[in-house]
Formats: sequence, C-alpha cells, structure tokens
Amino acid sequence: MERVTRKGIAFDPESLKKFDESAKKKGYANRSEAIRDLIRKDLVEEEKRNPEAEMVATLTIVYDHHKHHVQDELTHIQHHHPDIIRSSLHIHIDQDNCLEVIILEGKVKSIQKLADEIIAAKGVKHGKLVMTKIL
Amino acid sequence: MERVTRKGIAFDPESLKKFDESAKKKGYANRSEAIRDLIRKDLVEEEKRNPEAEMVATLTIVYDHHKHHVQDELTHIQHHHPDIIRSSLHIHIDQDNCLEVIILEGKVKSIQKLADEIIAAKGVKHGKLVMTKIL
Amino acid sequence: MERVTRKGIAFDPESLKKFDESAKKKGYANRSEAIRDLIRKDLVEEEKRNPEAEMVATLTIVYDHHKHHVQDELTHIQHHHPDIIRSSLHIHIDQDNCLEVIILEGKVKSIQKLADEIIAAKGVKHGKLVMTKIL
Amino acid sequence: MERVTRKGIAFDPESLKKFDESAKKKGYANRSEAIRDLIRKDLVEEEKRNPEAEMVATLTIVYDHHKHHVQDELTHIQHHHPDIIRSSLHIHIDQDNCLEVIILEGKVKSIQKLADEIIAAKGVKHGKLVMTKIL
Repeated sequence: MERVTRKGIAFDPESLKKFDESAKKKGYANRSEAIRDLIRKDLVEEEKRNPEAEMVATLTIVYDHHKHHVQDELTHIQHHHPDIIRSSLHIHIDQDNCLEVIILEGKVKSIQKLADEIIAAKGVKHGKLVMTKIL
Repeated sequence: MERVTRKGIAFDPESLKKFDESAKKKGYANRSEAIRDLIRKDLVEEEKRNPEAEMVATLTIVYDHHKHHVQDELTHIQHHHPDIIRSSLHIHIDQDNCLEVIILEGKVKSIQKLADEIIAAKGVKHGKLVMTKIL
Repeated sequence: MERVTRKGIAFDPESLKKFDESAKKKGYANRSEAIRDLIRKDLVEEEKRNPEAEMVATLTIVYDHHKHHVQDELTHIQHHHPDIIRSSLHIHIDQDNCLEVIILEGKVKSIQKLADEIIAAKGVKHGKLVMTKIL
Repeated sequence: MERVTRKGIAFDPESLKKFDESAKKKGYANRSEAIRDLIRKDLVEEEKRNPEAEMVATLTIVYDHHKHHVQDELTHIQHHHPDIIRSSLHIHIDQDNCLEVIILEGKVKSIQKLADEIIAAKGVKHGKLVMTKIL
C-alpha cells in the first residue's frame, strides 16, 4: 500500500479549474495524482542540476548499422563502462537504421560524459538523454 | 485580495519532504505557493503546444551592432509587426555586443514565426524565446 | 558507403575554435561529424513542432510495480495501441521500482497523446518523452 | 568587418537539403549563417552546464502588482544584488498583471540562485530564465 499524507493546499480558483481540465484530458484519476506527478517532475529537474547526484537515465540513439563499424564501437564503449551501463534495447527501424536505448545509472556528471561520448561516436546520427530518479 | 480555495491533496510523504526542503531553499513562503507555481508552469507548457493559443513572449537576442546593419534590419522587422511586438529593451553588453529583449504578444504560431525571422537576421548571434501567459 | 557532399562554410574563428575544443572533448572524430549532428538535432527539433509529422519516440517511465495494478494498466494501454507502440524494455531498478522504456512510432500528436495517457496512469511516478527521426 | 574563416565540411546530402529548406523558410541569408547560429547555440548550451561559467541572462516573470506588495519585494531583492542585476523592463499587460524582464550577469550558479529566489517571491506567478553568452 502506498502511504499518503493529506494536506490542505490553497489554490487560485481559475488555475485550479484549468489544471483539473488538463489533468482529466490526460487521463489522471484525480487531482492529487496529477499534483504528485508535478512534484516528482520538479524534484527530478532539481536533481539534474547537481553533477554529483545519483540518477537513472535512458539514452536514445539512432544510427545506420552499415556505417563505420558503429555497432562494434558502441559495444566497445558500453563494455568499458559496466559500472554505469545497465542494459540496452535495440530496435530495427528500417533496412538501414537502428534505434537503441541504453539504460545508465550513476552520477549526473558520469552519465552526461558517457552520453556525450556515445552520441559523438562516428555513425550515430542523433542522441537524446533523459534523466530520472526513483522518488 | 487574492481569492483562494483550499483543497485536501494526498501526497506521498517522502516526495513531499524533499519538495518542502527544495521550496524552502528557493525562498517560497509556504508549500501552497510553491505548488501554485508548479501548476501555472504546467499550464503554460500545455498552452505552448497549441499553435492558436494567445500568449505573451520575450525573445532574448545577442548581436554585434557594428555588423551588417543589424540594427536597421531589426528595427525594420519590428516595425512591420506592430500587432505582435509590444516593446523592447536594449542593453550594451560591451563595446561591440548588444543584448535586446523583445516583448511579443499574439498566437503561438505567429510569435514563433517572427522569432525565427529575428533570430535568422544577419548579425544576430544567438536568440532564445520564452513564452508565458497571464494565469 | 555514406554519400557525402563537401561544401565551404564561413565560420567566425573564435566560435569555431571553441566548438572544435568542445567536439574533441566529447569524442567527435572530426568537425564535419560534429556539425552533421548539430544539423540533425535541429531538424528533429523542427519536426517536433509539426503535429502531423511521423516520428519515432521513446517514453521513459518509472513506477512501483506493487501499486494500483499499474502493470496491468500499462499492458492494457499498450495493447490498445498496436499501431503506435513497437516494443518496450523493462528494468528492475530496486525491490519496488521499475523503469520501462516504450518505443512509439507515429504522428507527433498521436505519440504525445498516448504518452500523456501513460504518464497519467495511476502508479506511474515520472515519465519523459524523447522524439527522434530517421534522417 | 567580421573576420571569417572558410572551411570545407562534409554533409550528408539529404539532411543538408532539408536544413537548407528550413533555414530559407526561417529567413537565413545563407547556409553559413544558419550553421554559425547552430554552433553558437550549442556552445551556449555547453556553458550552462558549468556552474562557474560567466553568462548573461534574462529572467521573464509575470505577477499581479496588487498582491502581497510584490513590487516592493522585487525591488528589495534586486537592490540587494547590484553585482548581478543590470537592469529591468516593466510592461503593463492588463489592469492587474505585469510582465518584467530582469537582465542578470554573473556566474551560472549565482544567476540560477537569484532567479529561483525571484520566482519564489510571493505574488510572482510564473518565471522563466534564459541564459546566453557573448560569442
């Protein structure tokens, strides 16, 4: 069971009305659930500013597997960072292109540095990093 | 007086504790104030997705006033959009460089299009658009 | 073999120097590679603005698998959108928490709507969407 | 006169075609200009990661001037940071609401901290920070 604590919060009525509509449209079961998500999102954004914070991240990259031995290079990089890289998912988008999602865990600064290196690898066309945290 | 409506919200205790600490560190007077800000931030993000929404925006640009008659060009663009551009602030950063903040008001798509045009003007080195809304 | 076309580009020397240093630090093999990545990143950002554009996306979510039958709910949502959802990766972060990466493909507006719904599902603590494109 | 240095860059033809179209649509005079802007944007994003970097920033805030003596509070905060705050622009949006743009200069960490404090001030409804740099 999820422990919850109930608190009285003062809202301005107009924003609350709009927020309730927006939350309902997205499919939230209730207002508390939507507000809890906002709070966790905010805490994650805060954490990301701290280079020493421990986080979990997913790095999404797109590459052409025919080019530049990119898969060998990616495998090489990943095997040299067993402390940070947890696993990866590989999707064949079309005949040439792959999408790979790499799961990383560690300090913000280490995740960022390794993500930079992977995105910079010859043959990787695009990469985007998402950090999150268990809250 | 600000009208407020008080509602009971269910929080998970750990996130709430962290959020309270973060809000206090930033200087929020109380938890309700911090949550109201999160809600308004979320509503602004939602609005930005809608090209037809009416918003207020600030465009921050940096340019070298010696180059390419950039000021003439910026004045020219701004005077051709009196319906969107409200005013602007000009700061002399150093001997060569100016920072200008342009206030825009209108539909998201019109603001975005005009901002693209200004940032693309020859001599403008960097530009960044912020949208907001009166909530 | 990757087809390339070589073009002369005018740079300002100071920015180029800084960019070369930054690219080298990240591990880029050469300047052209780093610039090609910037261009693709820019094109992806452009595409995201168009609700009708076809894109590939990864949605990273974190949830506590003990709560609210969240896995049943997520499975239910995913099976109702076989046209958009391609596959997913599930990681056990700790005893309670899972990280799941869902791969989506479709129009920007459909991806966004489904991501909103998944993030809003009871029990999902945090979610973040990354869009990309095969370029 | 702007000093420029001309370099040969290898592009992939399809991305280049799309980029040229996008740059033309935005109003760029030529491809070099559009690429120089991308490079400067990238360098600014890099700098923002470094808490010790010296940057210029604009903070856009919206507030209701009737409430909580917010203007007194904002004036008070601004006068206590003459080393960081350069100037500000005030716009009357409607009968109740003001938009204020505050120009800040200093280390990333100091700018961020002061922006947090201003956004957290009672009565400030929304705030957004943009950092830039003279390049």
